[in-house]
Amino acid sequence: MQIKVMQNILQANEKKAAEIRMLLKQKKIFMVNLISSPGSGKTSLLEKTLPILQKKYRVAVIEGDVETDRDAMRLEKYGVPIALINTSGACHLESVSIEKAFTAFDLDNLDLIFVENVGNLVCPAEFDIGENVKVAILSTPEGDDKVMKYPLLFREASLVILNKIDLSAHVNFNQINFYNDLKNLNSNIPVIETSCISGLGIDKWVEWIEVKMEK
Amino acid sequence: MQIKVMQNILQANEKKAAEIRMLLKQKKIFMVNLISSPGSGKTSLLEKTLPILQKKYRVAVIEGDVETDRDAMRLEKYGVPIALINTSGACHLESVSIEKAFTAFDLDNLDLIFVENVGNLVCPAEFDIGENVKVAILSTPEGDDKVMKYPLLFREASLVILNKIDLSAHVNFNQINFYNDLKNLNSNIPVIETSCISGLGIDKWVEWIEVKMEK
Repeated sequence: MQIKVMQNILQANEKKAAEIRMLLKQKKIFMVNLISSPGSGKTSLLEKTLPILQKKYRVAVIEGDVETDRDAMRLEKYGVPIALINTSGACHLESVSIEKAFTAFDLDNLDLIFVENVGNLVCPAEFDIGENVKVAILSTPEGDDKVMKYPLLFREASLVILNKIDLSAHVNFNQINFYNDLKNLNSNIPVIETSCISGLGIDKWVEWIEVKMEK
Repeated sequence: MQIKVMQNILQANEKKAAEIRMLLKQKKIFMVNLISSPGSGKTSLLEKTLPILQKKYRVAVIEGDVETDRDAMRLEKYGVPIALINTSGACHLESVSIEKAFTAFDLDNLDLIFVENVGNLVCPAEFDIGENVKVAILSTPEGDDKVMKYPLLFREASLVILNKIDLSAHVNFNQINFYNDLKNLNSNIPVIETSCISGLGIDKWVEWIEVKMEK
């Protein structure tokens, strides 16, 4: 019974996600779903990315948070439209929330939407929200063993951002183990190493998005 | 309908948790539920804690992981009984899993059980597993803003471990903001600052457990 209900929820979510994906295609909007643990640097990455991409594209952000508007407030200064979804305890975003967030935007005047999902390495990966790509962000202090311990996200993602690379010297992150695990799990997935402090890798990340948008 | 089913699941979980709590009381076993994001240092904390506590107490560990036996393998060398629960995708432990894990132990010969919950700052806090105390672990690289963004755990916990304090100098963690948020959310909760590299604070953590066990 529990399983049946869960399947119904997932099916309803996927149906709505397919509608969102069709709408985005129609409106020529590219949508990126950013997924990571709490504190891996999703908001910091957006702080580095928005000033570059908003010069060329009309960008909006959907902020998913259990509670508070803190991340949304950090991004306010960039002047892009932001829709904040407080999940009030829920551990992930679903497609029905994305549909509601869209009502805050003028979709005829957007090229690119970033969704910052709830900080959680498990649940958000299970829920299609109609995005074009899922991007997994892992930060070096979290450890090199996360790929195999939380495999669904790293299987589903189109890209891995290995963030806080500036902390590598201070933490016990074995790059060989990390890349080996990723090769075994999802051999073709690209990885971009970034630091939101020094700006390292941000150019590659921006380029990766632009190439994906052109496809 | 969805809400009703969820309530049934939560009610069934709480009923079983109450049974577990009664059993633990009967057997004079103290059970600690360790909850944090992935990579905050739950396993590292156990690596520092087990060698000290097993000199005085009969200790066991329940390892909750989405997949792999990696954390359990890290703890194998301490020679304590370990029950591994692979949730196969599920984002938290429930009391029914704890009851199953108990079948791997001789409860008449235990004083203390550590449960390392699934790495997740959201879902595990919602599920009572019959523990005596929930301990929230936050590591400095995750950022000082997590208390208010993930309030349920920090409201439910009996103690906060602020781990990776050795990285403070290298990360942007504002202690004033962190302690202010915690004071506003849960004013009486104690905090122990730890480093599993230098060993700082481990003595205080061990002492905290021992005082709780005596009560």
